[in-house]
Amino acid sequence: MAKLIRNGTVVTAADHYQADVLIENGIIAQIGLNIEVEGAEIIDAHGLYVFPGGIDPHTHLDMPFGGTVTADNFETGTKAAAFGGTTTIIDFCLTNKGVPLSQSVQTWHNKAQGKAVIDYSFHLMIAEINDEVLAELPKMIHDEGITSLKVFMAYKNVFQADDGTLYRTLLEAKRHGALVMVHAENGDVIDYLIKEALEAGNTEPIYHALTRPSLIEGEATGRAAKLTALANSQLYVVHVTCEEAVQQIAQARSQGVDIWGETCPQYLMLDQTYLEKPNFEGAKYVWSPPLRPQEHQDALWTALKNGQLQTLGSDHCSFNFKGQKELGLGDFSKIPNGGPCIEDRFSILFSEGVLKGRITLNHFVDIVSTRSAKLFGLFPQKGTIAVGCDADIVIFDPNVTRVISSDTHHMNVDYNPFEGIEITGEPVTVLSRGEYVIQNKQFVGTPGVGQFVKRHTYPSESLQVSIKQVTVDQRGATHV
Amino acid sequence: MAKLIRNGTVVTAADHYQADVLIENGIIAQIGLNIEVEGAEIIDAHGLYVFPGGIDPHTHLDMPFGGTVTADNFETGTKAAAFGGTTTIIDFCLTNKGVPLSQSVQTWHNKAQGKAVIDYSFHLMIAEINDEVLAELPKMIHDEGITSLKVFMAYKNVFQADDGTLYRTLLEAKRHGALVMVHAENGDVIDYLIKEALEAGNTEPIYHALTRPSLIEGEATGRAAKLTALANSQLYVVHVTCEEAVQQIAQARSQGVDIWGETCPQYLMLDQTYLEKPNFEGAKYVWSPPLRPQEHQDALWTALKNGQLQTLGSDHCSFNFKGQKELGLGDFSKIPNGGPCIEDRFSILFSEGVLKGRITLNHFVDIVSTRSAKLFGLFPQKGTIAVGCDADIVIFDPNVTRVISSDTHHMNVDYNPFEGIEITGEPVTVLSRGEYVIQNKQFVGTPGVGQFVKRHTYPSESLQVSIKQVTVDQRGATHV
Amino acid sequence: MAKLIRNGTVVTAADHYQADVLIENGIIAQIGLNIEVEGAEIIDAHGLYVFPGGIDPHTHLDMPFGGTVTADNFETGTKAAAFGGTTTIIDFCLTNKGVPLSQSVQTWHNKAQGKAVIDYSFHLMIAEINDEVLAELPKMIHDEGITSLKVFMAYKNVFQADDGTLYRTLLEAKRHGALVMVHAENGDVIDYLIKEALEAGNTEPIYHALTRPSLIEGEATGRAAKLTALANSQLYVVHVTCEEAVQQIAQARSQGVDIWGETCPQYLMLDQTYLEKPNFEGAKYVWSPPLRPQEHQDALWTALKNGQLQTLGSDHCSFNFKGQKELGLGDFSKIPNGGPCIEDRFSILFSEGVLKGRITLNHFVDIVSTRSAKLFGLFPQKGTIAVGCDADIVIFDPNVTRVISSDTHHMNVDYNPFEGIEITGEPVTVLSRGEYVIQNKQFVGTPGVGQFVKRHTYPSESLQVSIKQVTVDQRGATHV
Amino acid sequence: MAKLIRNGTVVTAADHYQADVLIENGIIAQIGLNIEVEGAEIIDAHGLYVFPGGIDPHTHLDMPFGGTVTADNFETGTKAAAFGGTTTIIDFCLTNKGVPLSQSVQTWHNKAQGKAVIDYSFHLMIAEINDEVLAELPKMIHDEGITSLKVFMAYKNVFQADDGTLYRTLLEAKRHGALVMVHAENGDVIDYLIKEALEAGNTEPIYHALTRPSLIEGEATGRAAKLTALANSQLYVVHVTCEEAVQQIAQARSQGVDIWGETCPQYLMLDQTYLEKPNFEGAKYVWSPPLRPQEHQDALWTALKNGQLQTLGSDHCSFNFKGQKELGLGDFSKIPNGGPCIEDRFSILFSEGVLKGRITLNHFVDIVSTRSAKLFGLFPQKGTIAVGCDADIVIFDPNVTRVISSDTHHMNVDYNPFEGIEITGEPVTVLSRGEYVIQNKQFVGTPGVGQFVKRHTYPSESLQVSIKQVTVDQRGATHV
Repeated sequence: MAKLIRNGTVVTAADHYQADVLIENGIIAQIGLNIEVEGAEIIDAHGLYVFPGGIDPHTHLDMPFGGTVTADNFETGTKAAAFGGTTTIIDFCLTNKGVPLSQSVQTWHNKAQGKAVIDYSFHLMIAEINDEVLAELPKMIHDEGITSLKVFMAYKNVFQADDGTLYRTLLEAKRHGALVMVHAENGDVIDYLIKEALEAGNTEPIYHALTRPSLIEGEATGRAAKLTALANSQLYVVHVTCEEAVQQIAQARSQGVDIWGETCPQYLMLDQTYLEKPNFEGAKYVWSPPLRPQEHQDALWTALKNGQLQTLGSDHCSFNFKGQKELGLGDFSKIPNGGPCIEDRFSILFSEGVLKGRITLNHFVDIVSTRSAKLFGLFPQKGTIAVGCDADIVIFDPNVTRVISSDTHHMNVDYNPFEGIEITGEPVTVLSRGEYVIQNKQFVGTPGVGQFVKRHTYPSESLQVSIKQVTVDQRGATHV
Repeated sequence: MAKLIRNGTVVTAADHYQADVLIENGIIAQIGLNIEVEGAEIIDAHGLYVFPGGIDPHTHLDMPFGGTVTADNFETGTKAAAFGGTTTIIDFCLTNKGVPLSQSVQTWHNKAQGKAVIDYSFHLMIAEINDEVLAELPKMIHDEGITSLKVFMAYKNVFQADDGTLYRTLLEAKRHGALVMVHAENGDVIDYLIKEALEAGNTEPIYHALTRPSLIEGEATGRAAKLTALANSQLYVVHVTCEEAVQQIAQARSQGVDIWGETCPQYLMLDQTYLEKPNFEGAKYVWSPPLRPQEHQDALWTALKNGQLQTLGSDHCSFNFKGQKELGLGDFSKIPNGGPCIEDRFSILFSEGVLKGRITLNHFVDIVSTRSAKLFGLFPQKGTIAVGCDADIVIFDPNVTRVISSDTHHMNVDYNPFEGIEITGEPVTVLSRGEYVIQNKQFVGTPGVGQFVKRHTYPSESLQVSIKQVTVDQRGATHV
Repeated sequence: MAKLIRNGTVVTAADHYQADVLIENGIIAQIGLNIEVEGAEIIDAHGLYVFPGGIDPHTHLDMPFGGTVTADNFETGTKAAAFGGTTTIIDFCLTNKGVPLSQSVQTWHNKAQGKAVIDYSFHLMIAEINDEVLAELPKMIHDEGITSLKVFMAYKNVFQADDGTLYRTLLEAKRHGALVMVHAENGDVIDYLIKEALEAGNTEPIYHALTRPSLIEGEATGRAAKLTALANSQLYVVHVTCEEAVQQIAQARSQGVDIWGETCPQYLMLDQTYLEKPNFEGAKYVWSPPLRPQEHQDALWTALKNGQLQTLGSDHCSFNFKGQKELGLGDFSKIPNGGPCIEDRFSILFSEGVLKGRITLNHFVDIVSTRSAKLFGLFPQKGTIAVGCDADIVIFDPNVTRVISSDTHHMNVDYNPFEGIEITGEPVTVLSRGEYVIQNKQFVGTPGVGQFVKRHTYPSESLQVSIKQVTVDQRGATHV
Repeated sequence: MAKLIRNGTVVTAADHYQADVLIENGIIAQIGLNIEVEGAEIIDAHGLYVFPGGIDPHTHLDMPFGGTVTADNFETGTKAAAFGGTTTIIDFCLTNKGVPLSQSVQTWHNKAQGKAVIDYSFHLMIAEINDEVLAELPKMIHDEGITSLKVFMAYKNVFQADDGTLYRTLLEAKRHGALVMVHAENGDVIDYLIKEALEAGNTEPIYHALTRPSLIEGEATGRAAKLTALANSQLYVVHVTCEEAVQQIAQARSQGVDIWGETCPQYLMLDQTYLEKPNFEGAKYVWSPPLRPQEHQDALWTALKNGQLQTLGSDHCSFNFKGQKELGLGDFSKIPNGGPCIEDRFSILFSEGVLKGRITLNHFVDIVSTRSAKLFGLFPQKGTIAVGCDADIVIFDPNVTRVISSDTHHMNVDYNPFEGIEITGEPVTVLSRGEYVIQNKQFVGTPGVGQFVKRHTYPSESLQVSIKQVTVDQRGATHV
């Protein structure tokens, strides 16, 4: 049955206007003034925003790490995402040296199938480049539609790849049309700093931050940018936390390097002092890279505003305080890295970004949804409200004020890093391909209806395809 | 009568999709798949792009300069603009010291009325700040809707204002919600360089370029940026031509300064060697700032791509070669500054930018239309294709190839600086508020139907207004 | 009679070693181990440093300013200089539009003659460039040996020259071999900020600082650097106070621009809060540019250390608090700009720079003496301890600790801005051309014995001269 | 017997003057006008410069590399050095993982003993940091006087250390007073680029340059600078070849990092096109980092001039073309890296630097001798002409013009990379501790008289030592 969203204010990365939106067959079929369609279900959006569903480009669900497994799996994680206004996630598929990529991808498919309540895709970790990997990569990219490759410059002896591997990944990505993602920290130096801290008896959570200084996030970011320039390739820097990294990205962009940067709500909102909370509570705030001194927050907001950073990922990677974070009691290096954020990413950016005048409403949509869709090959199927697109829609009340709390959140984890923070704005109704997932703030979705989305190669915004499709397609979105 | 554009590919600053567009009462009323409206006139856009009409933020029509008057007035100029896909221009209203601002604005209204075939607005030149100007400014901004103020740092003893005037203009603009625009060249130094060149007998057109080096455009740009930072105000740098200026803008933006940059087709396409053309033909290429050595073109394209420059103005200021440019025979300093470009701006950016892979299709729309609408307070009435907006629309054939020439152009001037350059893409049909101006490449408009548009104050993209309107307006675009 | 300095540690810009120094005919005749000369007067320097006499490149003695005249003239000023270890000063000769340069220089000669107790030279202010000035300049430079020209970018309607005048001065300096000096602040903006402050009733001394922000010192410094690059000329920026200006100088130097920077003890030691002292005492700390917030001091020390700044001037320009600084009661803009520093410059740099580990001993000599000698054409006659040079020597006790105070200083002014600051190190004996000026901390000199020194053109360090002199001169210093 | 150098022009890093120089007991005993000493041997230096002997901070003598051994050993190498005006070298002592540092140092002592004709010292390579190395390091530094440690960021699987090792070396160096030196290139990336080139059949010498792009020298330089900042340590970047590396050094210095840069004559004089010489002659020009495109030479000269680079090393590492360079026929990666330069370093800098007006005469001495003495703890025993210093002196004819050629050079190698280049200036007589090594351009030295010099810890220029010595020493140079 068709659905008709009436009287809302539609907002895209470019536009905002009052109109009715008609959904048919899971697709946006019509946008207009005073649309009348017999038999359509009416959704009243008077006084509400009608946003494209959020796209979270950075999640870790059902992921093993440091001898434990993340608290959220694809069911609890995507459900919380939907509550928060996110309708597509791209999760990181880990790989292991010596194991076929296809096998790792299949493992990740198994994790998601039957559980996801919204659509999803995968990024693929690259741990090494050898003949087997070289042979599999084109299939992964073109057949599986996994068009983004992740390389770690940190986590020595675990995930860390050397610069030669990063460089080769950049070359392969350029050849086959994938976007390379890096975790940019100097793992060799961190490895020593951690050992030195532990030997000195510095075991508290704050030492997690002190052994990963921003200077070497900047260093690694600049290094990755230079290798990208050398390879004439494309790079996306995940979870940028500091001014030094922003400067490296800005400088590379000004030289024409095809480089993009993501930050996360935690780096915009929280600072290093959180790791000093007593009773080991600092462990709740252990992310890598770590929270930074307060002044870096301004640098990140400025970078979002002026376009040096383009996206916001949750880096959702939840571990319970009880039993999981506590693994690091007496040794900060054993605290599982990560925290829950998949649910709050969208609303925090609205409340802190738009309502506080840091970014415009259109820019909000771009950051929280459209830009990720374009960078990762989901566009125009996902990431906007336009005729022919998937009806992934968030109907959002911009006036309601609420307090974030683990008492009320829907993530399967026993704390919330933003506990007690008051924000304004909340999703009321969330649609995925035209079907309700959240209706009047209640979950009405179904585990398993979320689909894996094959993505376009990078860059997906070229004109040649467009022109061609203009003459070929008859109806529907151009798939560019 | 309603019009229905069928089967086109609609492109906005964010989206591109195939859909039908319904126009009623000069407004975009509906966008959708397979729209059927009885009695509507059908415009077949199969295989064509449906773009928002171009907005040219920088024109000089019917303007006196150096003892002569520009070749194009508001009739010939707006007609040529329409042929080229531009449906709104913002022209520069000159002022004179000692003359009330309102009188100057009235003069400009008189120039436009009865002549313009598309909509238009004015920027207001600020020559001095005194009590009279301070008293008039709020009226100009709030009552007249003239929300942009132009200050010249060059043209010593003619237009040039000193740094104190620029600084005070920035303060007043901040106070009342206007955007300050600067022509950034160091006029004092140029004045001496010109005198020195003429005394040395260097009278040929090339000396126009050699006496205005890029280094001092960079200097003045940096100076204006720093005064903007000091005033905590907002700045738009017109006609950026060189790497030095781009760097100053980029640096200021990275520090959070609210600064924007415009370039022009001539600086992207032509270089300094054009001023060396024999038989005084170099005079055709005399703009201020001047054309630069070729390597600056790459810097400008990169800056457009990465967002350090945001708009493209034509700086249309046409003078005939015969009788006007010739005033400078034997003395380059007497060559009227400027050239015709109002017609070719839109298509050149499409052909050279999109088709050559330098910018995406969405970014093209942003640069050529949407961004100017947002910066100058025309949005969302103008600058996009969205329900409720003015139906200022360009139906564009992306496949036709043609050669620019004064034989075929519609500007009232005897040469074209892009003569002989082959480009791909051409407007087929152009609508202004839903009425044909160009139909199947023929002019069908009417002088005088173009309306003066009062503009919103700066910045126009704030949220507070939006939220309010969400609850107040019933239908139509939110005026944010 | 010959003098023999025994057992001291000689320090130059390159070397430090223990040796005896023999002085004959006012010249350094011999340096060696165990020199024995019959009849020579022995000066025991055991445990003491033997430094070249300080060269102060920036003083204002007997200078009219704002309706009053500086408290120190050439007698009191040079006497205090000698007490402090300075044996040569270069004073600023003011000029007036319309008055022949030669007449202004004669006025300055008259001020100095019969009074100076040490040698001196003049910089020449350039207020305008016209045919008369152009005709006189070569004579000033080549005949009078006045090889440095000062241009003010601030003090609107008083000293300020426009950018065209600065640019032409740079050209003329390049042509004739002079070094251009600038006071770099944006006078137009300051002029408005002062008016605005006074209109708002902000009349206290602190508003002197607040109306001259560092941002526009940086702006003017960058502007001057760019004009220097354009003119392919040479520039010396006087009294650099802030990080913004340092960055502009550093950037220009890295691009090969021939630019140099001077700072002053007050900017290294004092900060903006001094202007907030109660009872109008803030007026004692009114310099232009003003004292800055504390963080700029680090930037200045770093710049001295890494060679981005090269010299230290006193900018000595003393006014009594009583009767002179008080002219600005109720209107900060009427406070005479400047303060006393000629006596403390040398020892402050030793105590705060060398003893606190910020600069090496050799670098101290370079900053306080040698570099100014080389830049301003006094070398090798002045500025070092080497065979054949003028015996301008400071025998310095590095171990004595003392407190700076107007009770004990020798400047003719009723306060000392460094009052109460404890420093270590003090000149014991000071020689000018081999004659005692200070002996065992007592003044024994004679007003009028100080000579005007004609200076070499810029740059004075070229090789061609050296090679030539190697074959021509028989003895004595090469005059390079 | 005493020696008396008469009538020469003495030049130091600060001064130049005509004087006689008396040498007694290998020490400079007296400098003065008309020195008369009975029985002293007179050396007439009329029309000649008297320079401190050159210090070459970067040589590789008798060094195994790639299955062969350098063509010059400590006898032929130091003899050639002396001919060229160099009186002290600091050679690189290689080490191997698992071998005690003391054993490696002994090996190097064995290489030098009985052979060196001038004084020498060693830098110590650090291949790894473990408990044995940590235990030995203080002895090496304090007892052996080896106060500089070399880390390679390139030569993967041969010399390359990882970032953790570099960081720990920086920490240890700071703790014990040593200066860390880095070869800054990204070895991981180079390793892949070489493999890729060879697999593609690109085996010619030019691919040596193409597989080591300047961008990754810049990358590694910036990385090392950032680790130095993090460790609050000190760094000396050897053989800087390109603008990217210079920029990283300049930026770090401007932030107060204690970082220094060396370049080499080959990078100032030769460019990448030399590697394209036919008949495998390109192999003669294989250094790592490689020769760069011509434009980098300007950047290096500017950096020397403005003090961003401070020293000039020869990186002398000679291999015969016949039999040694030829090992790389058919595989550029097997060409031994390095070339002969120990003899020409001094004269090339004089001719190309001073005579071409790029640097002053004093700066020449600083670059070629004094700065290395100060950085590496040889000062004031070495590196200057001052009373009490070692009489390491070069008497230099600045007027003779000659052509560099392997026919006339004294290095034990069958080619000269500067073959055919005409330079002006040549050492006539060279003294080491007062004894002739070169007399009237003839070798008169004795293998084995060269002494190993224990060096002061870093930094050696602190004041505290000076003050102490002022009161303690009676005669002779202060050992600071």
